[in-house]
Amino acid sequence: MPGRVTEHGPRLITREEIVGFAAEFDPQPMHLDEEAARGTMLGGLSASGWHACCILMRMSADGFVLNSSSMGAPGVDEVRWLAPIRPGDQLTLRVTVLETRASKSRPDMGFVRCQFELRNATGAPVMTLATSLMMGRRGGGESAA
Amino acid sequence: MPGRVTEHGPRLITREEIVGFAAEFDPQPMHLDEEAARGTMLGGLSASGWHACCILMRMSADGFVLNSSSMGAPGVDEVRWLAPIRPGDQLTLRVTVLETRASKSRPDMGFVRCQFELRNATGAPVMTLATSLMMGRRGGGESAA
Repeated sequence: MPGRVTEHGPRLITREEIVGFAAEFDPQPMHLDEEAARGTMLGGLSASGWHACCILMRMSADGFVLNSSSMGAPGVDEVRWLAPIRPGDQLTLRVTVLETRASKSRPDMGFVRCQFELRNATGAPVMTLATSLMMGRRGGGESAA
Repeated sequence: MPGRVTEHGPRLITREEIVGFAAEFDPQPMHLDEEAARGTMLGGLSASGWHACCILMRMSADGFVLNSSSMGAPGVDEVRWLAPIRPGDQLTLRVTVLETRASKSRPDMGFVRCQFELRNATGAPVMTLATSLMMGRRGGGESAA
């Protein structure tokens, strides 16, 4: 239901994970090497923004998606990378339901529009993400989320 | 410059990669197991949408980002997952420059708004993504992209 807020985590992110992910998917200097990263806008070794998205996905899966009637998502409406994620950061995820609506084409499905916010241990938001999840609906039309 | 189109790939995606990524970041049944996936909207084992984003990032890095003055991106404006990515798919990436503009706060930087399209070997688009890359600018104000 709109306005519902849940929190998930914390999830530690390590230097090894940051560098390992970057080597596979985003081999830019600021995600691979401390010294090279110092000279970039991020000012030091930081997780790829895509890594942050993947961690958000995993925290969501463990936090509520796998225990819901989720059918996936048609995409992502907006991602904002707000602050660097550093080795040793403890991340927490806050999910706010903004809106629910029925699908026009599939009566067994609804859309749940959510705002996701990933924060570090100081409470600073490091990423926000907005998307609509597709959820199975019970007969009456209430979202089964 | 606006209107410029580049193509990158092809990049094969294997069943092992799909399942390995899902086990780490997106452990939903449609990304992990053929049989479970058959009963979902995707109709069979398919890569996580986040995996597609990560592959797009890697193809972009190899294709042009690492060889440019890219300073990263402040986020992503929109991602659309249009069709399932299956084991054995050969993906190609098409990048179109939509717009370039100077940063108001940093004269040494500009924004290059790009549209990304990932297609499978039949030419069907499987994902689109829009974002603005931050690029270093040469003295005269031309984008160094």
